[in-house]
Amino acid sequence: MIFTDAELGYLAGQRLGRLATVAPDGTPQNSPVSFRHNPDTDTIDIHGFKLGASRKFRNVAATRVVSFVVDDVVSVDPWRVRGLEIRGEASALAGEEPPASYLSPEVIRIHPRRIISWGIAAEEAGLRARDISA
Amino acid sequence: MIFTDAELGYLAGQRLGRLATVAPDGTPQNSPVSFRHNPDTDTIDIHGFKLGASRKFRNVAATRVVSFVVDDVVSVDPWRVRGLEIRGEASALAGEEPPASYLSPEVIRIHPRRIISWGIAAEEAGLRARDISA
Repeated sequence: MIFTDAELGYLAGQRLGRLATVAPDGTPQNSPVSFRHNPDTDTIDIHGFKLGASRKFRNVAATRVVSFVVDDVVSVDPWRVRGLEIRGEASALAGEEPPASYLSPEVIRIHPRRIISWGIAAEEAGLRARDISA
Repeated sequence: MIFTDAELGYLAGQRLGRLATVAPDGTPQNSPVSFRHNPDTDTIDIHGFKLGASRKFRNVAATRVVSFVVDDVVSVDPWRVRGLEIRGEASALAGEEPPASYLSPEVIRIHPRRIISWGIAAEEAGLRARDISA
């Protein structure tokens, strides 16, 4: 498994992440999306409404590189934040069976290559980073 | 002024945005950052702790292209979200006077080139997008 139990638990409790994609001209796009960890493929799967018509879907089809960040503010005073940045290669897939009927048959499927985390594990201080082999 | 009053009000009420930058090899990075609208330059300014040593600062210095998204969930049932995606060119500046003493003298200064908004203006439905001339 790519993710730790603490990371999977954190991801399951968050509604939105922000997905950065890159257009063929090298400029980034960044947008909030819902997501789920797909246990069958050990990937982050992003469905959506009319996803196939979106610029992020076309960007992924063209350049494949993404960075997906899920984070939140745990407390303001003292200031405490936590989150995961998942950098990787993504596929823009069509014709998948969506996990819910209101979701698009298209999916952006992220294969993690580097994971950076902060504040997720109880004993954790500062940033942790690790590479995931392809 | 680049931003509307409704947009400035929204930005002033949010603690974090997510900044996507692009490395020289074309791969994106995405991270939560605090920010402020700088009224003197009409830019989004991102300071930070040890910002000058960060990968996002080096990415901006090298490629300049960024996308910065600020968004939140207003209500879950009914599902209502709002936010702004600000795409633009950014400068990695050193030696600025920080707005607070605990912040870095470095700043990432974003000059907006395209603004996409949703749910910000009371009368607004769906996405609105506009280009900003340089």
